[in-house]
Formats: sequence, C-alpha cells, structure tokens
Amino acid sequence: MNVTHKEAWHILTEQDDILILTHRAPDGDAVGSLCALFKVLTSLGKRVGFIIDTVPKSLAFLTEGMTSPEFEPKCVVTVDVGDKKLLGEALEKEYGGRVLLNIDHHATNVLFAENTLLDAAAAAASEVLYDMFTQNGIEITPEIAMPLYVGISTDTGCFRYGNTTSATMRAAAALMDTGIDTATVNTDIFDTKTREYAAFETMAMNSMKMYCDGKVALLLLTKDMYRRANIAENETQGINALPRQIAGVLVGITIKEREGGNYRISVRTREPVDAAEICALLGGGGHRQAAGCELTANPRTVISTILKYTEETLKEQGLI
Amino acid sequence: MNVTHKEAWHILTEQDDILILTHRAPDGDAVGSLCALFKVLTSLGKRVGFIIDTVPKSLAFLTEGMTSPEFEPKCVVTVDVGDKKLLGEALEKEYGGRVLLNIDHHATNVLFAENTLLDAAAAAASEVLYDMFTQNGIEITPEIAMPLYVGISTDTGCFRYGNTTSATMRAAAALMDTGIDTATVNTDIFDTKTREYAAFETMAMNSMKMYCDGKVALLLLTKDMYRRANIAENETQGINALPRQIAGVLVGITIKEREGGNYRISVRTREPVDAAEICALLGGGGHRQAAGCELTANPRTVISTILKYTEETLKEQGLI
Repeated sequence: MNVTHKEAWHILTEQDDILILTHRAPDGDAVGSLCALFKVLTSLGKRVGFIIDTVPKSLAFLTEGMTSPEFEPKCVVTVDVGDKKLLGEALEKEYGGRVLLNIDHHATNVLFAENTLLDAAAAAASEVLYDMFTQNGIEITPEIAMPLYVGISTDTGCFRYGNTTSATMRAAAALMDTGIDTATVNTDIFDTKTREYAAFETMAMNSMKMYCDGKVALLLLTKDMYRRANIAENETQGINALPRQIAGVLVGITIKEREGGNYRISVRTREPVDAAEICALLGGGGHRQAAGCELTANPRTVISTILKYTEETLKEQGLI
Repeated sequence: MNVTHKEAWHILTEQDDILILTHRAPDGDAVGSLCALFKVLTSLGKRVGFIIDTVPKSLAFLTEGMTSPEFEPKCVVTVDVGDKKLLGEALEKEYGGRVLLNIDHHATNVLFAENTLLDAAAAAASEVLYDMFTQNGIEITPEIAMPLYVGISTDTGCFRYGNTTSATMRAAAALMDTGIDTATVNTDIFDTKTREYAAFETMAMNSMKMYCDGKVALLLLTKDMYRRANIAENETQGINALPRQIAGVLVGITIKEREGGNYRISVRTREPVDAAEICALLGGGGHRQAAGCELTANPRTVISTILKYTEETLKEQGLI
C-alpha cells in the first residue's frame, strides 16, 4: 500500500524496536538515509538497530559512532530499496517478506513492503525523508542534516543530474542553514581521488570501447583490474560516469565483474535515451539517466547482451 | 564608491547606450553575467552593446543570437571584473578609466570603477545580478534565468565549492522554477569531454609533480602540449581542478604557458590554505579556494617562484 509522508510518520511513531535496512553495496543516499532515520528515531527514545553492507571509505564519517544494539526487532523499515532483491540474499531471505515500511524514490519500485512511502519525483530517498521529517515537525539538527545532505548530493551528482528539482535545491538550502560544512564534504566525496583510484581510472579509460558510431561507450572492469590497482569495487562508483562523459555518447555502459561469473552493469544515458528502460529489459531498474542490472554469464555474452538491448532501444528511437 | 543593489539598479536605469564588458578568457560566470545583463537592459528598450573575448564552446549557446549594435557608448558597465587589468590590455586602455558601474563578487576587488556593486558573499557575479534584478522587481524569464544559472553553477563547480551558500541554492531554485533545462546544460558543461580533452587530461596527469611530502601537486601545461592535443587554452579550464583532487594535496597548482613567456597560474586549495593569499603575493587574486596570478619569466623560474610562496604559506601555518 502506498502511504503519504504523514501516514508513514504515523506508522513509525507507533513502533519500537525498529530495524533499518538499505540496499547492498550502499551509496551515499543509502547510507545517508539510514543514518538520518536512525538518528531521528533514536532521538525520540526508540530502540533502533540497523544492518548495512560495507560503507565506502568516503562515507564512513556518517556512520562513525553509530552502534546497533542487540535486540529482537519488532518491525523492519527499509530506505532507498526499489526491490527486496537489492537487500542481498541473506537479508532478503530473513527480512524481505516482513518489511513494514519502505521509504524510497525509485520510479521502478516494486512495492514489496506492507507500506511504501514512494516519491518518484524526489531526487533521493534522503529528500523523501527530509520531506517526511519537516512535514511532521521534526527539528533538523546538524547531525540529521549532514547525512540527508550527503544522500541528496550524491544521488544528484552534486545537483547536476536531471533528477535535481527546485525542491531538491531548497531542501539542500535548508539543510545547509543548520551550519553543516558542505564544502569539505563535497570536496572529499566529489573532488578527491586516491592515487589508486586515479591509476584505476586511467586503466579503465584505456579499456574503453566505442560502438554504434560513437553513440555507445563501454567499459569492462575485471576482478583482475581491481586486484592490480589494489582497490575495492565499492570505491570505484565514480567510474560509472566516465563512458557517458565523452562527447557524442548517448549510452555509457560500465560492466563490473563480481564473484562467480556475476556482472553488475551500470547504464548512464543522455536524453532522449532511458537507462531504466534498457535495464528493465534485463530485470534491472533505476532512474531515467542512471540505472543498473545484473547478468551471470561469460564476459563476452554479458557484453553482447547489453549491447543488443542498447542497440535495439537506440534503433527504436531512430537514433542509429 | 560602493553601492547597494538598489543604487546600482538606479544608476543603470538612468543610462542609455550602455557598453558591457567582462574579463578576458571569460568563464561561465563572466559570459552568463554579461548575457543576463544585456538581455534585461535590452528588454527595457535601452541600446546595449558588449565586447567579449573568445567564449568557450560549451558556453557558446548563451551568446547565440546576441549581437552588439554599433554605437558610441555613453557609459561602460563591467561584470565579474575584480581589477581593470583583467579586461585585457586593449580594453583596459580604452575603457578601464571610465567604468561607471562594476558588478562583482571577488573579495579582492580593487574598486577601480566609479561605482561598485560588490557582494563578496555571493558565489558568482550572476548571483549578485540575480539579487539586483529580484530586489528591483525585474521578472526573471527563462532567457535571463539560463545565463544566470550557468554563471552560478560554473563558479560553484555545480554547487560543490565553499562559496555555495543556502542563498546560492535558493537563487538557483528560483531560476530552475522558470522551467529552464538545467540537466542538459549541466551534462554539457560538467559531464562532457571531447576526445581531445580526454587525451589532453591524460597528458596533463602524466606531467604532474608532487612537492612538500605530497601536500602540493603541480601541473605545467606548455604551448607544445596544447598544440599536440589540438585544443585551445580556454577549452581546458577543467584541468585546473585536477592537482587538488589527489588525496592529501592541500595546494593544487596549474601553470599554463601563454605567449611571450607569460604564464597563467591557477591555485586551488583545501582548508586551511587560502589560495587568494598565495596569489596576492604575486599580484593576483581570487577566492579562498580558487585564485590565480600571472608571471612572465622562464618556466623554471615560474615554477620555483610559485612553489617558494606556496611553501612559505604552508610553513607559516605549520602545515609542513
């Protein structure tokens, strides 16, 4: 059932012993949303726990000092989760069928929870949380503002992407008014590369292949490349932006090898191409200009499959 | 004399046959400010002209269709100009001594004009113009909103830098409310590289030298490198951001060779280092985290000079 910001808040206030989950391989919005909701509910005197997959180094300051107490959860709340599959196998199995409330912004949300607060016009789950908090009179302290700001800024590429609305900008303005140091955070997240990352980036760019007369650019990142650059996969999300950056590219594809022949595919598009539409053909989802899907096959098949669906989409629109 | 937004507007409304100038090698804020002021004054029925140096390709859409009529200017107005020297030699000689009004946001502004509307808390001259227009009841049409948005977004690195305030975010929100397509513009400006640029970037990164135990990174971009990559200097402003991006770097220096042994130095810093302070020691200026200066010497002397002043500044603050 879809619920409003007020109804979602009402559901939360009636609960205690709440476990908060988010999607695996958490990005800034997943971490920020989880942290902000944890802090708000804790400040109301509730017992709140959380389970989160490895947090990228640049976001680790958000969860610093946050500990999840041991208790038997009476209810489960998820944030920024479009599908319970995205919780990861173990969490999906244990909690996927009993999520009381899911707070999300993905248009492709499959409504797996008992109650879903879904605002597909919001740039980030953190923006949905901001709206829920402010519509229900919750005071936004700097401790709550920071994770929400990080959630919004990371999901919008720091207010660059098409999901950024004037409401997003005003939410960020209000969060900045609490006095948080956004400049340092933005520099750390958007303007800092380790030497390892810089080397990996060069390696990735060297592997770039162009298709469809320069309208499609593709990167294949293998486990071997991660090993050679001494870098973890979740430290390399920025790489996904590279293929689309080349002038003339309408679809930028980044394929990352995981364990057991599993490949995570990120698709970034320029107008008028819909990334979520391409990924939906392969069981994935996301946003209009940034979406993802997974395939388990040998790398050649993975590449030819995503290219086939991409080409078909471009042809249907008369773009090639 | 310093004037308020209302006084500046009063001065402008009393004039006709206005010539608008901005600094040479114009960036997004220079182009955006000039375009917005030109359009607003023209819409009021005034005869308005402008002179502008080469506009970077990614910003050329802003000046498209704008023509400067032939007339003898009765008054000269400058935007985004901290010092009349920045107009370039020819314009400085012809108009530098007779600027009626300068609208700017550089804290280092030398107040060369008869009247100066200076708001050093504004992220961009375009933000100062936005405030002046709205405080004086000027309707912001999409045609005016777009150049102002580009001015603000480019001077803030798309709302990333420390000069971005909540007022900046709210100004951008109001500009977005006119319906302008900011996503496409942001992709074109911040997320698009020509193949030439990508190649030049790699070349630049290969030339990077580290000093002061990794706290200073320096790039030297020679005319020969521009020639080999087949790219113009004003297409490579993004390069200035690269040295500071490496983790641990407090001062990122980019030196660009110009004609006749002249070198343009860009300094980007992280807190607590003040880029404008370093550049002021060499007769330049700018903002706390992004400033510039010029030197005419042989490249070895240019490098040793900027390094000497940078090291002294770091030593004074006990950072090395």
